[in-house]
Amino acid sequence: MRELMRPFKTLVNMKSGQLNPCRHVIERRLSDMKGMYLDAQAYSRLLNQGDKLIYKVYEVDVAQEAGQLIYCTTIIYPGKVGNEYFMTKGHFHLKEDTAEIYFCLQGEGHLLMQARDGQVSFLQMKSGTIAYVSPYWGHRTMNTGDKEFIFLAVFPGDAGHNYRAVEDRGFAKILVEEGGSPQLKRNPKYVAEPE
Amino acid sequence: MRELMRPFKTLVNMKSGQLNPCRHVIERRLSDMKGMYLDAQAYSRLLNQGDKLIYKVYEVDVAQEAGQLIYCTTIIYPGKVGNEYFMTKGHFHLKEDTAEIYFCLQGEGHLLMQARDGQVSFLQMKSGTIAYVSPYWGHRTMNTGDKEFIFLAVFPGDAGHNYRAVEDRGFAKILVEEGGSPQLKRNPKYVAEPE
Repeated sequence: MRELMRPFKTLVNMKSGQLNPCRHVIERRLSDMKGMYLDAQAYSRLLNQGDKLIYKVYEVDVAQEAGQLIYCTTIIYPGKVGNEYFMTKGHFHLKEDTAEIYFCLQGEGHLLMQARDGQVSFLQMKSGTIAYVSPYWGHRTMNTGDKEFIFLAVFPGDAGHNYRAVEDRGFAKILVEEGGSPQLKRNPKYVAEPE
Repeated sequence: MRELMRPFKTLVNMKSGQLNPCRHVIERRLSDMKGMYLDAQAYSRLLNQGDKLIYKVYEVDVAQEAGQLIYCTTIIYPGKVGNEYFMTKGHFHLKEDTAEIYFCLQGEGHLLMQARDGQVSFLQMKSGTIAYVSPYWGHRTMNTGDKEFIFLAVFPGDAGHNYRAVEDRGFAKILVEEGGSPQLKRNPKYVAEPE
């Protein structure tokens, strides 16, 4: 029998979302989100003011294999590109029959999910909300509040990330501010999957 | 392709640990813990005073199958049987090569883990601690504080529970209060696994 992996612990700062210790920190800036916002002019204008940090991820260092669980905290900063909220890139799992759990610690946001057949699901999150991303649903989160939106995610070690599916086709819906509140709108740039 | 499972959300009360909605609530009382505490006389004395609630679990209603994730909150009440802290029954997973994550929300406690070969691992938990129960490790939690010890657990849908292994053999160590603080001691009633 191979050597057993030892149990371990990390500490989440419940206010800031920071994971400690953490060797794997990912920062996504505005320049990493090229083509993901509908309003290309607003995107360029904002980028000219500086390459803003959109979100930050602290991820645990666990083997990406079946039976393991990977967890990470995500901090999405408040802000908009035009009237579209700051958001994550979004992804499907490479192993599409795997779920993911999102547990909101601070702030408020929305979780947008999409199936390959075009179905859309949409959940509002606030502190204490646990959202269940069922198997096969691509997922993206947006900060719709005026503070940091912070959540813990847990997913199977062998789930993997497919960002390409979202980069190529976008999401069928976008979330924009209209009249002071978030509104879900059709994304005219979305490329539907072939039937 | 079969019907997709829809995403959904629940709400955790961050103070009380209660999950809402929740159709699956488990209560473990002192009478459910027969034979699990070393001091049989203290156990009988306490039971004579009433069948105390030791811990309560709120579990999400998700299919127990590969690719899904099951989560639950556990509230262990403060107290002791003799000098041994209130604790969960403890279990191994039926599918032993699966991990589990414990995220402490309130109070303080300890997580005791044990491998089949007799190795023991032991982690202290407080609000914000995420403990990683690596694959193959049996696990039990104790409330070592004077308030409710509340944590969220996440495990793979096909992990399953093997309580029998702990009921039959016990854990190699017990956690007792000595001089006002928790001390890990050898459990003289532990039956080691055959080599």
